[in-house]
Amino acid sequence: MIPTAHLHHVAYVVADLDAALPLFVARFGLTQEIREVMPEQGVEAIMLGAGAAGVELIAPLDPDGAIARFLDKRGEGLHHVAFGVPDVAAMLARLTRDGVELIDTAPRRGLGGHLVAFVHPSSGAGALTELVEVAHAER
Amino acid sequence: MIPTAHLHHVAYVVADLDAALPLFVARFGLTQEIREVMPEQGVEAIMLGAGAAGVELIAPLDPDGAIARFLDKRGEGLHHVAFGVPDVAAMLARLTRDGVELIDTAPRRGLGGHLVAFVHPSSGAGALTELVEVAHAER
Repeated sequence: MIPTAHLHHVAYVVADLDAALPLFVARFGLTQEIREVMPEQGVEAIMLGAGAAGVELIAPLDPDGAIARFLDKRGEGLHHVAFGVPDVAAMLARLTRDGVELIDTAPRRGLGGHLVAFVHPSSGAGALTELVEVAHAER
Repeated sequence: MIPTAHLHHVAYVVADLDAALPLFVARFGLTQEIREVMPEQGVEAIMLGAGAAGVELIAPLDPDGAIARFLDKRGEGLHHVAFGVPDVAAMLARLTRDGVELIDTAPRRGLGGHLVAFVHPSSGAGALTELVEVAHAER
């Protein structure tokens, strides 16, 4: 049986979180749910509720980190798509068996405390793809 | 009052719809809801259900069209993010008043027959942004 995934969030890299908020909050009426500094990734991130799914905004704190390099190279824009699945470790095992190119071979802690893992864009139809394990009764 | 938007779908450009499907259907368990040739855009597109939101796959039919040029330049990957709003024309009027750079100044027909309009990436945190007017009792 295939565990059905759902669109959990889409993430943007932006230069400045506070400068990006008016588009999503004042114009689109989204609400901020989480704002968190993630020192290991060298970023600060916001999760906005957008119906049943979310919009994540990521801004670099570390000028030498991956997100700062993304911003330098490509400018602001879409960074990754995240799918919610019931069990990230089980999904990673299935994807490994299928020869999918993974970035994370084991789940790690992501924004909001969820267990997450990233799949390489080459196995994600060209998009960096995050898997998010969501607790029951959560999205 | 701000009309609250929700994440309606995220869209990928892919070279071949059928080649892209296994990732989303066999691995992530998503279900195909719509498959439609859109001659005016020179594309064929699929909408997959992914929880309350959707995943759109777009492949070029016209080798000189915008989607073929996107694919040539950037390869497969994320193309746009779509937000569902109750009234696209009203949202376009508000965005015009706010100086937002629009691609469509009036709603037009999109995939699945919805009224849609696109906002320029320069006003969309670097991402091409679609507004989708959804009928009641639909997402």
